[in-house]
Amino acid sequence: MTTLEIMRRAKAAAFTAAGIPAAQKNEALAAMAAALIAQKEEILAANAADLAAAAGKIGDVMLDRLRLTGERVDAMAAGVTDVMRLPDPVGETLETVTRPNGLVIKKVSVPLGVVAIIYESRPNVTADAAALCLKSGNVCILRCGKEAHASAETITLALRAGITATGLPADMIQLVEDTSRESAKALMHGSGYIDLLIPRGGKGLISACVSEATVPCIETGTGICHVYVDGAADFNKALAVIENAKTSRPSVCNAEEVCLVDSRIAADFLPLLQKRLSEGAHPVELRADETSLPYLPGAKAAGETDFDTEFLDYILAVGTVEGVDGAIRHIAAHSTHHSDAIITEDAAAAARFTASVDSAAVYVNASTRFTDGGEFGLGCEMGISTQKLHARGPMGLKELTTYKYIVTGNGTVR
Amino acid sequence: MTTLEIMRRAKAAAFTAAGIPAAQKNEALAAMAAALIAQKEEILAANAADLAAAAGKIGDVMLDRLRLTGERVDAMAAGVTDVMRLPDPVGETLETVTRPNGLVIKKVSVPLGVVAIIYESRPNVTADAAALCLKSGNVCILRCGKEAHASAETITLALRAGITATGLPADMIQLVEDTSRESAKALMHGSGYIDLLIPRGGKGLISACVSEATVPCIETGTGICHVYVDGAADFNKALAVIENAKTSRPSVCNAEEVCLVDSRIAADFLPLLQKRLSEGAHPVELRADETSLPYLPGAKAAGETDFDTEFLDYILAVGTVEGVDGAIRHIAAHSTHHSDAIITEDAAAAARFTASVDSAAVYVNASTRFTDGGEFGLGCEMGISTQKLHARGPMGLKELTTYKYIVTGNGTVR
Repeated sequence: MTTLEIMRRAKAAAFTAAGIPAAQKNEALAAMAAALIAQKEEILAANAADLAAAAGKIGDVMLDRLRLTGERVDAMAAGVTDVMRLPDPVGETLETVTRPNGLVIKKVSVPLGVVAIIYESRPNVTADAAALCLKSGNVCILRCGKEAHASAETITLALRAGITATGLPADMIQLVEDTSRESAKALMHGSGYIDLLIPRGGKGLISACVSEATVPCIETGTGICHVYVDGAADFNKALAVIENAKTSRPSVCNAEEVCLVDSRIAADFLPLLQKRLSEGAHPVELRADETSLPYLPGAKAAGETDFDTEFLDYILAVGTVEGVDGAIRHIAAHSTHHSDAIITEDAAAAARFTASVDSAAVYVNASTRFTDGGEFGLGCEMGISTQKLHARGPMGLKELTTYKYIVTGNGTVR
Repeated sequence: MTTLEIMRRAKAAAFTAAGIPAAQKNEALAAMAAALIAQKEEILAANAADLAAAAGKIGDVMLDRLRLTGERVDAMAAGVTDVMRLPDPVGETLETVTRPNGLVIKKVSVPLGVVAIIYESRPNVTADAAALCLKSGNVCILRCGKEAHASAETITLALRAGITATGLPADMIQLVEDTSRESAKALMHGSGYIDLLIPRGGKGLISACVSEATVPCIETGTGICHVYVDGAADFNKALAVIENAKTSRPSVCNAEEVCLVDSRIAADFLPLLQKRLSEGAHPVELRADETSLPYLPGAKAAGETDFDTEFLDYILAVGTVEGVDGAIRHIAAHSTHHSDAIITEDAAAAARFTASVDSAAVYVNASTRFTDGGEFGLGCEMGISTQKLHARGPMGLKELTTYKYIVTGNGTVR
């Protein structure tokens, strides 16, 4: 099927999807989870074919993202069940106003309509995204990278079998067949069909979508997260937070990439930091600016791009700044508006930092790793928005809805 | 100054703007209103020059939009004072969650940052947009059409004099000097500088922004608004609503352009409608489809594009449909997602219509003309969003804000 035909079918299905009662959506989600388990063998066989075709062509990290196991399929099904248990975000009356002329204006949450997700090699995004869209009354169009296509196709087949068993239109979940760049372009330019485009993947994919798309698009993901250790920091808290933010999972967007230290405490704190980050299972490579290098014997001198790089690795750029205002200025110049933290016992410094740092999440004495739908209590996540329109930070079910005004009069005229 | 330099200055000013207390913003708004009155003569002189230069080059409607009078400058100043009296939308704690690990997550409303407004020949947009942006802690970049540039320049000078008198940075309000297409393009592609682009004007401007902009952009304005007269309608209410929706101000986006009539009542209702719409000071030209033409003696036969045209004039396309489902189908095929109404005494038909019509505002027994920030009780309006992301329908102060998460721990790690 062409991508245009897929978009046409999605639009037709959106009309039905918007009005499905919560109970029926939950029934469909249960059937989708069950179908994933029932078709585990087919899914694993398709994934084995994807892995065989990709071997030697993509790196080990990518291969691991692509790989499914029995447990991973179980986890995918469990994820769908988790989404089923969340409250229905649609049909909520957000505000009601009665105007002096008697008009009653209700603001009601409704689905966005058709959500397109362009992703890369993680087959589990297929089920995650489809479940979140279904629960929020949206129709989804999934477009995965060619490496994962056979896996995504069997997963989609299972999900569609689940929803049709419940009497809902299979076209609520569609996978784009064409994995060439043309299909991504068709989605980016699908005005009139696509209500929201979400790119999930690397920097290249995201910036291509943001700059090319003529349909509404949400920028997700890139995180150059800073932890600033203030002159009034508790060193133990600082060391614990930095170790966690840098090393607990360096490959994700909420991991720390830059440590800024107040110049007043650089001589005392930096040697402790170097010791702490060299002791773990994976020692961290420090790349130090001129002012911090003297306190970090053996560290590399930071290069020109090191304070603007999302390493996604056991590497940390380290610099000193002049107090909280220096930190705020540095972050303003290098920010990706994702997550940044201050470590301080000084409430005034904390207040200044949280007011002035223009990021989706700003932390005081806590790890940047908490920027996550689950950790924020949303129960799920479609991505982390690093832009300011519509949604900022972790996008849960509510961020997959919009609203409309329903206005009731009695022959009322203006 | 180049547009790039203007964007750089705006970004620098945004840093200050975000933290200005409500009282100081209100003081600035009062000073801005006073400066408009104080510099009325200069503003009117500049406007006279604009009018003289435009005479013969643009039509009468455009000339009237461009024209300022003493009363219109007073109204502009009064508009700024009205915005001053509205509640501050910034710094509100929207949600607070305490997580099991002790993290306190606060969701707080903050300004968007830099808002660019591209508009055409209405000089009053200069003051309206600047006041709304200032009140919401945003910096604005105004880019008006060349016809209105001298007027906009004197208005901007007055507004800037007002804000500097209060000690705020003048660069919170800037007018782009270059009125060529290049400056609009620079704003559309101002990634890293522009947080939101709002086009205000005709269809050509809006679609150019939506399709070209790589910065977040909100589609505003175009309205092909439908009124559907159901078989169970009260004819008096239907006639009153249609007369109001069509004729009270035909040049605006919330005016009715299409009347759909349930085929069951076409023979009874259409002659009454024709009579009513021929009696006013401005008789309405009806363009009828095949099925309604027999009941509308003397009406024109509708052409192919008449059900997809925003007439903005005393013209109404008329067609019959098969009940509420027929109306819903017609609207889905021709909608601009702005405002649509059903006239009915049947609660089930009303519920089906409001649930299924995918527009920013859906009306029961009321005129589409109410889709307006003032009429909705927002006290002001930056435009009517016809898209679904971020804001839908009238955009007030709240829609000029975003939020950030401020997360406080105690050395908390994941």
